Formats: sequence, C-alpha cells, structure tokens
Amino acid sequence: MPHKEQPDFQDLLARGQEGDRRAIGRMISRVEASGVADHVMMQQLWAHIGRARVVGITGPPGAGKSTMTDRMVKYWRKKDYRVGVIAVDPSSPFTGGAILGDRVRMNDLALDTGVYIRSMSTRGQLGGLSLACSGAVSVLDACGYDPILIETVGVGQSEVAVMNVADLVLVVSVPGLGDDIQAIKAGILEIGDVFAVNKADLPGADRTARELHIMLSMNPELSADLPPILMLSAEQNKGVEELCESVEERFSLMQNSQELIMRRNRRLEKELMAYIQNRLYKQVLSPALANDSFESNVEAFRTNKRNPYTWAENILKQIQIEGSTP
Amino acid sequence: MPHKEQPDFQDLLARGQEGDRRAIGRMISRVEASGVADHVMMQQLWAHIGRARVVGITGPPGAGKSTMTDRMVKYWRKKDYRVGVIAVDPSSPFTGGAILGDRVRMNDLALDTGVYIRSMSTRGQLGGLSLACSGAVSVLDACGYDPILIETVGVGQSEVAVMNVADLVLVVSVPGLGDDIQAIKAGILEIGDVFAVNKADLPGADRTARELHIMLSMNPELSADLPPILMLSAEQNKGVEELCESVEERFSLMQNSQELIMRRNRRLEKELMAYIQNRLYKQVLSPALANDSFESNVEAFRTNKRNPYTWAENILKQIQIEGSTP
Repeated sequence: MPHKEQPDFQDLLARGQEGDRRAIGRMISRVEASGVADHVMMQQLWAHIGRARVVGITGPPGAGKSTMTDRMVKYWRKKDYRVGVIAVDPSSPFTGGAILGDRVRMNDLALDTGVYIRSMSTRGQLGGLSLACSGAVSVLDACGYDPILIETVGVGQSEVAVMNVADLVLVVSVPGLGDDIQAIKAGILEIGDVFAVNKADLPGADRTARELHIMLSMNPELSADLPPILMLSAEQNKGVEELCESVEERFSLMQNSQELIMRRNRRLEKELMAYIQNRLYKQVLSPALANDSFESNVEAFRTNKRNPYTWAENILKQIQIEGSTP
Repeated sequence: MPHKEQPDFQDLLARGQEGDRRAIGRMISRVEASGVADHVMMQQLWAHIGRARVVGITGPPGAGKSTMTDRMVKYWRKKDYRVGVIAVDPSSPFTGGAILGDRVRMNDLALDTGVYIRSMSTRGQLGGLSLACSGAVSVLDACGYDPILIETVGVGQSEVAVMNVADLVLVVSVPGLGDDIQAIKAGILEIGDVFAVNKADLPGADRTARELHIMLSMNPELSADLPPILMLSAEQNKGVEELCESVEERFSLMQNSQELIMRRNRRLEKELMAYIQNRLYKQVLSPALANDSFESNVEAFRTNKRNPYTWAENILKQIQIEGSTP
C-alpha cells in the first residue's frame, strides 16, 4: 500500500503547494483519518515543514474569536501571506471540509484562494484531536501557508490540549462575561503569550485588562516578562493591526532567543509520545481490555467474587508484561 | 518475596486495625514506595475496604484549608469516629510520615490516637501521586478510619487529579483573594460537591458566595441539583458543624441514589487504568526510550539527518508493535 500511496502523495503535495484546495483537503483528511496522524505521510511531510508560524487563538465562547480570526486573516492577506485557519470545535459532531455554522460570514474569505479554512471536531480517543490538528498544521505548513491560525470554540481541556500544537497562544478575553471568569478556566492563563481584550468599546474593558494584568503578575514564572495585553474591537476593526504586529513581534523574539526551537522540540516530542502511546493503547491494551473489560467485572468486583487488582495483573499478563502477583 | 511478605502484611494489617500507627505508616510507605501502588498489597487490602467515606478538600492557598480540616477532624472525633488525614503537597520535596510545616498546630490532634495524619508529596511520574494517595486511602480504610480527609495545598492539575481519589469533594473559597479567581482555576468548580466560603466574617464573603452560586448555576449539568454553598469561619469554629452535617447528608444522598457506587467504580477503573498504563510505560516504553531518547535525536531531527516519525516507528518496533512504515 505505501508503495502505491507514495507517488500519489508527492502529487497531492505538489498540487497543494500550488494552492489546490482539493489536494490539501485530501491530505488533511488522510492525516485525520485514523484519529492518529498517518505516519507514512507525516514522515514524508517532515522535510517540507517548519516555516509556518502557528498561532493558537482561544478564549471563552462569546469573546468574538471568529471575528477576530477573520480580521487577522485579512491583515496577513494584505501583506500577501497565504493564511491557514483551523477551527476546532470538540463539541461538534461535524468535521472535515465543512465550514462551521458561524463561519458563513467568512464567505468573502472562502472565495480568497490565498486562505484555507478547515473545521475540525473531536476525535474518538484522548489526544486524538491534537494529533489530527498537528497533522493538519503540517499539511498546511508544507503547502506554504504562513501563518496558520488555530481557533477553538471554548476553553475546555481539549481546547487547551489543542493549543499545545501552536507556537504561540493568543488568549481572547472580553468584558462582562460573568466577571471574566471564563477566560481563566482550565489553566488558560498559563498558556497565553499574547492577551487580547476584545469588544474594548464595551464598558468594563479597562477593568478586564487590569484584572488580567493582576492575574498575570501573580504568576511568578512570568513576573520578569509579562505577556502583552492588547485592547481591540474586532467588530469595528480597531486594534487588529496592533494585535497582529504584537504577535509578529513575539515571534521575532522567540526566534532570536531560541525559544521557538525549544517550543517546537517540546511540541514534536509531545506529538510523538502521544502517537506512541496511542498506538500502544490501540494495538496492545485495547484488544486485551475488549476481551475482559472492567465494566464486565464490576459486579464481580463489588461482590468480592473477583479481585480488581488481580484483573489488572491479568490484563498486564495478556499484553505480556510480567505481573507482580505471587 | 511475596511468600515472605504475605504473613508480614497480615500482621501489619491486624496491628493497623488496632490503631498501631507505626504499622499503618509502614503499610502506607509500602504502597507509596514504587510510585505505583504495591499491587500485592492492594490485592490483599481489597477485601477490607469500602467503608470509609473519603472527602477531598481543595481550594486556593490561603483559604484556610488546614484549619478547616482540623476543625472537621474534631467534629468527627467528638462523634467517636477514627479520622484519617492525608495532606497532599505536590510542590513539596518531602513526603512520608513527616507532618507538614503548618501542621504544627495540629499537635493536639497528633496526640489523639484516633487520628492518623500523613503528608504526601509529589511522586515521580504522572498519575503517581493519585496512585500513592489512593493506596494510602485503602490502607486507612482497611484499618477502620472513617472519614478520611484528603487535603491539598493548591489547586493545580495534580491536586485536581488527587481529588479523583475522593468520594466527595469539598471546595473551599475565601473572600478577597484576587476576586476569588483562584477558586475556579483548573476546572475545580466542576469537581465540587459541597462548597464552603471560609473566613465568612471578612467583608465580601456574601459576594463570594453569590458569585459561586452564579458560576455553579451556569453549569448546565448542575442546574437541577446545585451543590450546597456553606459559610463558615474555621478559625472561630463557626459553621463547621453545619458543614460536616452537609457533607454527611451528601454521603447519604449518594448512597441512596447509587451515586456512591458509581463513583467508586469509576474511581477504581481510573486507578487500575493508571496502574496498567504506568506499568506499560515503566516496563515497556521507558527502557526503549532510554536506549534511543527523543532528546538525543533533537539535533538530528532539526538538521534533517533523522526523521522523527521514523524514530517513533523504531521505538514501536523495539517494543514489538508492528509499525506502519513501508
């Protein structure tokens, strides 16, 4: 099979690099297909990637992330960059080429051949979404897209995991959302490199920015180098330019300080470890658990007919790991 | 070795059940020893556990959790329960029998033979702290301690993981801590069964309670059955009784609705899966990674001398999982 796919892939890649959306779509579908990135393809992509700046955009629902993303795309389009957008919605049952519901107004972008927009939904297993997202980023990177914006819908655990795929994370906050509490859920403050207060024309925006500043100052790891907090109104297209410049500036800083290399190494290591553990789970653990599941033993455990720790040792024996049972 | 240890363990258990602290300490040290709970012992403990009500107590530093724990211990001591306390501090390098620094004032409790206090620090690997904590809970449960209070120092990821060991989680908040923001970090709101606003004599306590109420109401999963929010001052010993009664009431409700059984099943499943994955990692993956680590290849990856995806396939081959490479 690989021998058949290899030329096929080179052809797809060549077409993708010329901006052929169908070719790009097919490659992304392929890296997504198994929930675990297609490693044959990832191996082949490796030599072609590393140029794209990958920006994660996250924040609570209602913070105006999509509008902000659209504006940012337009900023980079004006500078003649080809921009990739991956819209991640773990709660949505839809994935693939389809554009998310609230993406309808992105239609003017959809007509721009210099922009590739892809929506992505949750994958079956843990870590699968990040792997799929990482694969899509690699495809877009190899096809010459830069920057690539990864936009999430919420701020849950899966969204935070997806942000690990980005080089730089932009956290969007907004005034008046239940005392801004959502913005800091799930450890999101710790992963932000640039902070944006959107809808800055609304009352309370200054307070939101001030509170962000206080919260960030409380983090001893950041105290020396507080991330910038920018005020903007994406809707009114105010402050978007400054925000994009700030993102670009952070990239330059990260490039000069080797921080970018370090982050990408960490990201690659995480991706590969997730891949290895996924494979271990799928090929080794999962079949053993299918034969003798925890669920099917619950009653026996509770009534002391079977010992759960003996069950665990049995599973380990099935996958040929010597147990510690006497 | 197991043949030698088995009678030893029965002896330790018998002594522990009579309240012999040294025996209990030795058993806990043994379950902690490898970072992964000692399964031979866990197997033997299984028949003796399931009676203790395990209460997790978490909240931001400065919320007065230790004082609250002390007061709660005294409440249950008055009712003649033998109470176990596990104080978890993932950031501390110390673990074992030593009592945490701010535990000095717990000295009056330390003299009470009906109370067993144990501090616990971070274990090497991911999930190790939860496994060690779970092991300690099993030992105390088997020795007749009920309730068992697990108190954490902060609200980080490890603390949230440790709370998985508890049957019921008590989240402590306090007025005036940076707009109460810390209390809701790291998804802590979602895991709370009972909420306490400590230092209720301070200004802003009502507002803290109101904000908690609003935040909890915003969770669609809870809307039907909002967890109780109790005001108290542990320092002044006001409201502690009501809090403990509320905890007991929640336990009765959970018992009647089968919720407790379901939670314990989930907890056991998580514990066993963590154990299995830990063993997989330690015995299979870790040796392969030691031979050919990601770190040692970073330069080769960056300069395209080696393909990282080929490296991952190699690791999988070493652990005898057939790769997808051509």
